[in-house]
Amino acid sequence: VRALLFDVFGTCVDWRSGIVDEVEAVARRHDLEIDGGTFADAWRERYQPSLEEVRSGRRPFDILDILHRESLDAIIPVFGLDSLDDTERWELTLAWHRLDPWPDVVPGLAELKEHFVIAPFSNGNVSLLVDMAKRTGLPWDLVLCAETSGAYKPQPESYLNAVAMLGLDARDVTMVAAHPDDLRAARAAGLRTAYVPRPLEHGPGRSSEPDGADDWDVVAGDFGALASAVGSVSAGATP
Amino acid sequence: VRALLFDVFGTCVDWRSGIVDEVEAVARRHDLEIDGGTFADAWRERYQPSLEEVRSGRRPFDILDILHRESLDAIIPVFGLDSLDDTERWELTLAWHRLDPWPDVVPGLAELKEHFVIAPFSNGNVSLLVDMAKRTGLPWDLVLCAETSGAYKPQPESYLNAVAMLGLDARDVTMVAAHPDDLRAARAAGLRTAYVPRPLEHGPGRSSEPDGADDWDVVAGDFGALASAVGSVSAGATP
Repeated sequence: VRALLFDVFGTCVDWRSGIVDEVEAVARRHDLEIDGGTFADAWRERYQPSLEEVRSGRRPFDILDILHRESLDAIIPVFGLDSLDDTERWELTLAWHRLDPWPDVVPGLAELKEHFVIAPFSNGNVSLLVDMAKRTGLPWDLVLCAETSGAYKPQPESYLNAVAMLGLDARDVTMVAAHPDDLRAARAAGLRTAYVPRPLEHGPGRSSEPDGADDWDVVAGDFGALASAVGSVSAGATP
Repeated sequence: VRALLFDVFGTCVDWRSGIVDEVEAVARRHDLEIDGGTFADAWRERYQPSLEEVRSGRRPFDILDILHRESLDAIIPVFGLDSLDDTERWELTLAWHRLDPWPDVVPGLAELKEHFVIAPFSNGNVSLLVDMAKRTGLPWDLVLCAETSGAYKPQPESYLNAVAMLGLDARDVTMVAAHPDDLRAARAAGLRTAYVPRPLEHGPGRSSEPDGADDWDVVAGDFGALASAVGSVSAGATP
């Protein structure tokens, strides 16, 4: 293994808490009370359907910022936030650039960076991932994503284009994710897989993913454990 | 200014010394004596013509590693190195991934990274730039290049696609280069410009660029001076 690619929303960052905080702050400024968790879930619920419009070919590729903004516009009436103007809507859309990593992520990535090429491989766009990394110190070597691949996960070409840019064979690259569907697609494209469950992704007591009962190359509880696991895998077992 | 894009060959790294050392080592292993400087110059002389094949549309986009390998194959007979096999030719082609930065580059970039998004913007491919950064500690926030833009400099779309991926307006991005033709094209695309002359790029006493008599936004002797200059430009002058 020479490089590790990381899913970002859920795997590296706690998107739900970040969105909850930002939308509740916006509502307060408008003297409205809304349930941030319900809002965040409603916004995220439109995520896969919006990507599917692109993956199916029904619309040309647009970056995730655009899709996030369209989904926001669609749910805003449901929550009585119609008074948000265009500037406020863009500002809230950019909340996805300002999400915080889980506590193990920055130290785990720093350790992994000493031995491997590390990059996000997210459906987020380049500027989203760069803003997030600058704000929170994610020490990526480079930024790879749907925008650089020209295709959204889990389409095979999204992974294959990322691997090609790294100049590597797929078997020399590990996809790291909290989501089995992402890992299954990466494995089908020839990559290795590391499953890092994030039981708090959807809020306390609302874990929506299985707890790892699949044949992944690595299963790790956090990025520190991941660094230990792939470090020893990469060094090879003494026969 | 929010981001700085850096030309790499010549501006960040001393390509000529690196190629001289590697080709002379290869020749010694084959009990041949060649002049590394003449070889490096002959290889680099084919650089712009090989890019022009792509820019003109006469051939589809190929990454620089491929173009470097073809140029190597073309000059090898001239230097009597025909006995190099395919593996040795690829290994020598990858010498372009192993070039060393000028001494001011890593500390200057580290300082700039505290205030700006910094990225290479090179005609080199992604894996070339990642290998170079990992080996020498270039602290890029992300890697942008002809491969991510789908076009070679100095074509306008190469700069504009890079700026679009950053999610910025061209006027918020500074192109940094030792080459006026690169800067002129960046300026025509709307970017700001910083000229950092590298009089030793082509070897001692063989400077091929003018010494800065143009209307660049910044002229700096090295990356330390560049950090001071754009730091104060960005903070704004007190009226």
